[in-house]
Amino acid sequence: MRPSSRRSDELRSVRITRQYTRHAEGSVLIEFGDTKVLCTASVEENVPSFLKGKGQGWVTAEYGMLPRSTNSRMRREAAQGKQSGRTQEIQRLIGRSLRSVVDMAALGERQIIIDCDVLQADGGTRTASITGAFVALSDAINGLIAAGKLTTSPIREHVAAISVGVYKGVAVLDLDYPEDSDCETDMNVVMTASGKFVEVQGTAEGDAFSREEMNTLLNLAEQGIRDLITMQKTALAL
Amino acid sequence: MRPSSRRSDELRSVRITRQYTRHAEGSVLIEFGDTKVLCTASVEENVPSFLKGKGQGWVTAEYGMLPRSTNSRMRREAAQGKQSGRTQEIQRLIGRSLRSVVDMAALGERQIIIDCDVLQADGGTRTASITGAFVALSDAINGLIAAGKLTTSPIREHVAAISVGVYKGVAVLDLDYPEDSDCETDMNVVMTASGKFVEVQGTAEGDAFSREEMNTLLNLAEQGIRDLITMQKTALAL
Amino acid sequence: MRPSSRRSDELRSVRITRQYTRHAEGSVLIEFGDTKVLCTASVEENVPSFLKGKGQGWVTAEYGMLPRSTNSRMRREAAQGKQSGRTQEIQRLIGRSLRSVVDMAALGERQIIIDCDVLQADGGTRTASITGAFVALSDAINGLIAAGKLTTSPIREHVAAISVGVYKGVAVLDLDYPEDSDCETDMNVVMTASGKFVEVQGTAEGDAFSREEMNTLLNLAEQGIRDLITMQKTALAL
Amino acid sequence: MRPSSRRSDELRSVRITRQYTRHAEGSVLIEFGDTKVLCTASVEENVPSFLKGKGQGWVTAEYGMLPRSTNSRMRREAAQGKQSGRTQEIQRLIGRSLRSVVDMAALGERQIIIDCDVLQADGGTRTASITGAFVALSDAINGLIAAGKLTTSPIREHVAAISVGVYKGVAVLDLDYPEDSDCETDMNVVMTASGKFVEVQGTAEGDAFSREEMNTLLNLAEQGIRDLITMQKTALAL
Amino acid sequence: MRPSSRRSDELRSVRITRQYTRHAEGSVLIEFGDTKVLCTASVEENVPSFLKGKGQGWVTAEYGMLPRSTNSRMRREAAQGKQSGRTQEIQRLIGRSLRSVVDMAALGERQIIIDCDVLQADGGTRTASITGAFVALSDAINGLIAAGKLTTSPIREHVAAISVGVYKGVAVLDLDYPEDSDCETDMNVVMTASGKFVEVQGTAEGDAFSREEMNTLLNLAEQGIRDLITMQKTALAL
Amino acid sequence: MRPSSRRSDELRSVRITRQYTRHAEGSVLIEFGDTKVLCTASVEENVPSFLKGKGQGWVTAEYGMLPRSTNSRMRREAAQGKQSGRTQEIQRLIGRSLRSVVDMAALGERQIIIDCDVLQADGGTRTASITGAFVALSDAINGLIAAGKLTTSPIREHVAAISVGVYKGVAVLDLDYPEDSDCETDMNVVMTASGKFVEVQGTAEGDAFSREEMNTLLNLAEQGIRDLITMQKTALAL
Repeated sequence: MRPSSRRSDELRSVRITRQYTRHAEGSVLIEFGDTKVLCTASVEENVPSFLKGKGQGWVTAEYGMLPRSTNSRMRREAAQGKQSGRTQEIQRLIGRSLRSVVDMAALGERQIIIDCDVLQADGGTRTASITGAFVALSDAINGLIAAGKLTTSPIREHVAAISVGVYKGVAVLDLDYPEDSDCETDMNVVMTASGKFVEVQGTAEGDAFSREEMNTLLNLAEQGIRDLITMQKTALAL
Repeated sequence: MRPSSRRSDELRSVRITRQYTRHAEGSVLIEFGDTKVLCTASVEENVPSFLKGKGQGWVTAEYGMLPRSTNSRMRREAAQGKQSGRTQEIQRLIGRSLRSVVDMAALGERQIIIDCDVLQADGGTRTASITGAFVALSDAINGLIAAGKLTTSPIREHVAAISVGVYKGVAVLDLDYPEDSDCETDMNVVMTASGKFVEVQGTAEGDAFSREEMNTLLNLAEQGIRDLITMQKTALAL
Repeated sequence: MRPSSRRSDELRSVRITRQYTRHAEGSVLIEFGDTKVLCTASVEENVPSFLKGKGQGWVTAEYGMLPRSTNSRMRREAAQGKQSGRTQEIQRLIGRSLRSVVDMAALGERQIIIDCDVLQADGGTRTASITGAFVALSDAINGLIAAGKLTTSPIREHVAAISVGVYKGVAVLDLDYPEDSDCETDMNVVMTASGKFVEVQGTAEGDAFSREEMNTLLNLAEQGIRDLITMQKTALAL
Repeated sequence: MRPSSRRSDELRSVRITRQYTRHAEGSVLIEFGDTKVLCTASVEENVPSFLKGKGQGWVTAEYGMLPRSTNSRMRREAAQGKQSGRTQEIQRLIGRSLRSVVDMAALGERQIIIDCDVLQADGGTRTASITGAFVALSDAINGLIAAGKLTTSPIREHVAAISVGVYKGVAVLDLDYPEDSDCETDMNVVMTASGKFVEVQGTAEGDAFSREEMNTLLNLAEQGIRDLITMQKTALAL
Repeated sequence: MRPSSRRSDELRSVRITRQYTRHAEGSVLIEFGDTKVLCTASVEENVPSFLKGKGQGWVTAEYGMLPRSTNSRMRREAAQGKQSGRTQEIQRLIGRSLRSVVDMAALGERQIIIDCDVLQADGGTRTASITGAFVALSDAINGLIAAGKLTTSPIREHVAAISVGVYKGVAVLDLDYPEDSDCETDMNVVMTASGKFVEVQGTAEGDAFSREEMNTLLNLAEQGIRDLITMQKTALAL
Repeated sequence: MRPSSRRSDELRSVRITRQYTRHAEGSVLIEFGDTKVLCTASVEENVPSFLKGKGQGWVTAEYGMLPRSTNSRMRREAAQGKQSGRTQEIQRLIGRSLRSVVDMAALGERQIIIDCDVLQADGGTRTASITGAFVALSDAINGLIAAGKLTTSPIREHVAAISVGVYKGVAVLDLDYPEDSDCETDMNVVMTASGKFVEVQGTAEGDAFSREEMNTLLNLAEQGIRDLITMQKTALAL
């Protein structure tokens, strides 16, 4: 029995709100139950120095949690003077996930910076970030097309992400914080609309996990991501 | 004529939403038109080391802007590894303003940390932060009373803040970003319910200002703050 | 009764020594009683990157205290690896104050960097810094004129600063450290020779202050600054 | 055809040299072909503050690359003043992998710090680090048993790691640098002697990967890790 | 011929002014011609953590240059967020030099922190710092004796320092900046009143130096330091 | 009697292994008994900005110790976010020593970066670093000649370094850690093949040292360095 009474293969209630703030070229509030992440996409007409003059663009991401997005207040990273290892790991994951579905040459010499800021956390912030960031990225790219700066979209296909895990011996989809902090295995899966994997990161928090458990988890994740991609499409069609 | 067509003595539409996020002991979204700041209050049962054993509490504040809360993306302070001088100036101002209305001995040996994070900026973020932070602080203290940790409130009176300035030669109340970036004089005023000043910070951005202009600005600010304190009271009564 | 036995409207003994050190284009030791600040002006034939090619100059300031300028030794900011919020606040104030009286276009594409280093502190270091920095800036600009790099001075008028406050219920001029650390209200005022304000920063350290008290304080400050500007002129005439 | 002419399921030549340096409680040079990592284990009779008084131990890891371990010189992290995101990601992975096979209560209130320093890099440094670190950790724990500080080993079972990937369309085991920098998919697998997974981290560098490819990669990894664990056992038996 | 027209064995004019600032337990302005260093000694009734409970004291030093103490403005180390290698080297040298003549057990569990801040630089700042710091240290220790906290002085003997070098082929004493920046060899010598060396640091800036040149330089330094120690004694006798 | 039973004028066993790692243009493992330092030379076809366009090259050095190269684990400098004063002092010394024997104009506009990383420490790491770094530098320069980028070597002569000291009242050559941590005087000497000094750094750790002791130490160092230069030549002739 899950703390939230959800079925083992049941996503939390997901809401995707576009144009949540007004300055960014893409601005999406994504909610997975009580997890709320603001994902903005900023278009800059330049590229990082390692790409100058190579005729291609770049997509990168930064991630942060508001100090009191969590149950106990976390220290503010800006005040501490550095980002934690966890923060860097997550923002690198978001960036790689998005780059996997964008044709960098077609994007042209510009970069899109995704900021994922967690307003409220209840588990699954990195997968919610990826799922919402894709929508913000799409809005930014549609804006470039509308402005005549791009003729076709450099986005090859949708990408979304979900966490799965083994909680009290049962494989479950979309762990919330009570599950996440007490599970045996935690796996984050990033998958495209065509059903291929971009990232699979499974970690045994307690006991190691078997090949069989891994397969069950991947099955759950595949179904969850298919549903999330449908929701992304619905949101983008509004 | 103001860019927003407001009268010179007219506040923007102000909204105060309590319990905006669920973890913090106080959580308030305050909106001054398009300026939106999330103010949370976190209660910690300890005090900074310089106060240990002195039988009194502490109230302090931290401030941040989401990278794309602004028109062009700002660099993330956590990634840069330090807070700007402006950020530090603002968070020190918020902390002093709140401490001015709290009886630290009555608070007991605990601290309340206020986080003001700007989700969307359109001028006046520091004064919106102070005004919203007071409400979050009140909720946190009411929680302490409800939990039996305090018997009476250590808050002596309400405090709120507003910006005033000279824009195109006219004294105006509650500057938005187009006014703020083009005004001659900018003044931030923090005042209590009893009509006394906690902070007055006037800065000539262009030409210096006369004593007479200063008086006109203070008159405008006094009226604006009285209105804001009424709104705080209404919000807290809900 | 003030600890120093001064009248409430009496400045400390002020001394302005030009050419205090030999390398800088302007080098002034300013003393307000036991407060001693070395203000140097350095001319550099470049501008910060945000001004490149805009045909205008820049004036900026940095501030520091020697570790044992104070009663108990302060930690050296260079060793700690960062400047405190207070330091940044003060150096931003000094810079803004000086810029308010300089015509940046007339200065040409060069910058003047003011360093204010406190050799000995006894209250009022920021206002002494502004008052002394103006003299150092004047010397540096006179040097540019003498060298034929400027034909007329880009300085529009004198600027000086003083602190005023409410100490034991009485409004007093030019607080020394014993007064500053025990006053109810502290106000720093920066004013030009034409009697207009550049900055007014009033802070209630204990009780909030009334509009009436504010007016009394501003009256005191105006008289003090007029006297300081006379002293600046005398020093520059030597 | 692999650049090294190895078969697709062939490990590089692996060498494990114990007691490589003399000060550490465990000191192992592990070589996977041209990849050479020095893994030391240091025993400290204390625990991090979050574990004080909880009656359990801790195992943690730090990772670094010598500046010229790589083909072009990398900037020294100590000189840059921070560890890269990649470094932090790797050292967190090493620490988690080792902790998964150690009974922290049985270790007692002490910590073992593993340092993995890459002397020469040719791909696969993180998996070589984990495999070598386990041997260094075993030596350190055997030293505690020999010294009478522990009666039985808190190590539950062996753990080792290998990288697998899809290179030019073919699934291959133990990627060297030319393969790693040109592969479509890269997967790091950490597995125990009992054949269960501790970490699976698959990343699509180019095209996303299918479930079928993932299965092939996991098969390869399982066989490679079984061989590595045999080598660990042989080395520890010397 | 030296730029200053001094004889090869001639010191610059040296002035030692005690009680230069009023807060520190020892405060000395030392001038070697145009080199001016403010040396303060601060007594703290605690010791660094590595000495806690060992029944002995500590003497340490910090060094800094005001940004415009030099001919071109140097960047402020506090603003850059770190001390340069040169700064750290010099402050370690000052600390070691002073510790060499103090009996740490006799000092008791307290530390004396020496701050050497260069107000104006013209070569030889580190040797002027050591020579002046000894006087400030003596004043601080005499204050401890006067206050009854020490009965006898833990200072064993005087220590002073001078630079010598080979300039245009000639061995010279006490290099000023024009000599220092154009010499072949530069040597800093720290010596006690009994004629023994505490530090000898010789560096070939251009050509390497012979044993014979080294002997000539040491002869010059010995005479210079004897004169400086006489001046220290005269200053302390006032 | 020395702890190692060596004669007072006896070097430890010295081994110089070239091509120790494969990526660097020069890669030397130097061993002085149990002290083992990996010295690599990296050639970069650029120069630091202060040398741009001046038609000359640069040689610089960085130094580090692996955390467990020492008896107790040292904190990793990359994790602490800064290099210690000692580290900076040593790397500046290595750089100056090497530059003293290289004709920078003949090197052309390129730089050679030497990395000295201590794998195992037993005293004398800085002098071993200099001695080994010279061999790595030579290999890198010979590579430039072999590649036709230089026609003649910009190296003027060999340079090597050794430590000497007074241990239990006796002048000894090449101190190991037990001697180094318990000696009265410690001197590092850097000398060229022609018998001239590049650096002499003598420090009294306990009692100050006399001119006579200094001469004895320099005699010992001269003989030791002559032997080391012979070993460098032998190693380079292989």
